[in-house]
Amino acid sequence: MRHIIAILLQNEAGALTRVAGLFSTRGYNIESLSVAATQDPTVSRITLVTKGSDAVIHQIASQLLKLVDVVSVEDMTSGDHLERELLLAKLSVPALRRPAVDEMIARAGARVIGEKSGLLIVELTSSEVDVTRFIEQLAALAEVREVVRSGALGIDQGTGQGGAGKS
Amino acid sequence: MRHIIAILLQNEAGALTRVAGLFSTRGYNIESLSVAATQDPTVSRITLVTKGSDAVIHQIASQLLKLVDVVSVEDMTSGDHLERELLLAKLSVPALRRPAVDEMIARAGARVIGEKSGLLIVELTSSEVDVTRFIEQLAALAEVREVVRSGALGIDQGTGQGGAGKS
Repeated sequence: MRHIIAILLQNEAGALTRVAGLFSTRGYNIESLSVAATQDPTVSRITLVTKGSDAVIHQIASQLLKLVDVVSVEDMTSGDHLERELLLAKLSVPALRRPAVDEMIARAGARVIGEKSGLLIVELTSSEVDVTRFIEQLAALAEVREVVRSGALGIDQGTGQGGAGKS
Repeated sequence: MRHIIAILLQNEAGALTRVAGLFSTRGYNIESLSVAATQDPTVSRITLVTKGSDAVIHQIASQLLKLVDVVSVEDMTSGDHLERELLLAKLSVPALRRPAVDEMIARAGARVIGEKSGLLIVELTSSEVDVTRFIEQLAALAEVREVVRSGALGIDQGTGQGGAGKS
């Protein structure tokens, strides 16, 4: 029921509001969303994660395509795609637990990018599931003060842009 | 003039629309935005990048705080903070250029996470400036088919949550 959707849209004021508004007025939830410029500065790309039946997602996609700023919509869920998420976390680690935390960080492929006033800033790029598991593991050993996640980014491995464009 | 702002908000339907709407109705631009859950599933965190004078940003922050879903707002720009961004890029690389591209990927600290039908999927986690430069460097050697960016995530290195909460 989880879907990951890529939306290309014209970089116009209000474009993000219109996309988010389409979800909220219809009661669809957005679990996570990232939006930033592409290699074309006039076009931004949203990756968002939502939940719903295939029928509902299909309906969302066709409504998105009707928005004036939207260039294309692609439901990557069932296709051949890769997903990655970025996590930044701030930890307070008791001295005795530090070796175990360092080992956990190394095992997860994470790394310490800052350390100040006894607080560690840790970075991990991995799958959404692995990021969630890593936070849970950290919380068992340390006090997790802040969690900053990008939400899943997705990219399809096919040769085209994929997705439905405007007709 | 660039500002990076962290917003904690109740995970309610429409919360993101209200935040984005506040920017668009006042003509403020959002350069990038990421939103995902925190360690508390009822609270999400937005990191967004925008441009404006300090006075305008201050005004935005106090208007954000008036939104019913918003728990706290923190302008991290001038404080002691770390920023990281995740990039996924899809490349078509001419065979002759492949060694140079591989070298560029290694030098940037990026890595190849997928390779199929002659297309490379590359991942980089770095600063916003470095991500932009890496894309430009790749474009000089390869055809950049798709660029997916998370936008900058930020975390302050201080001991508190920082930022203004509801009074």
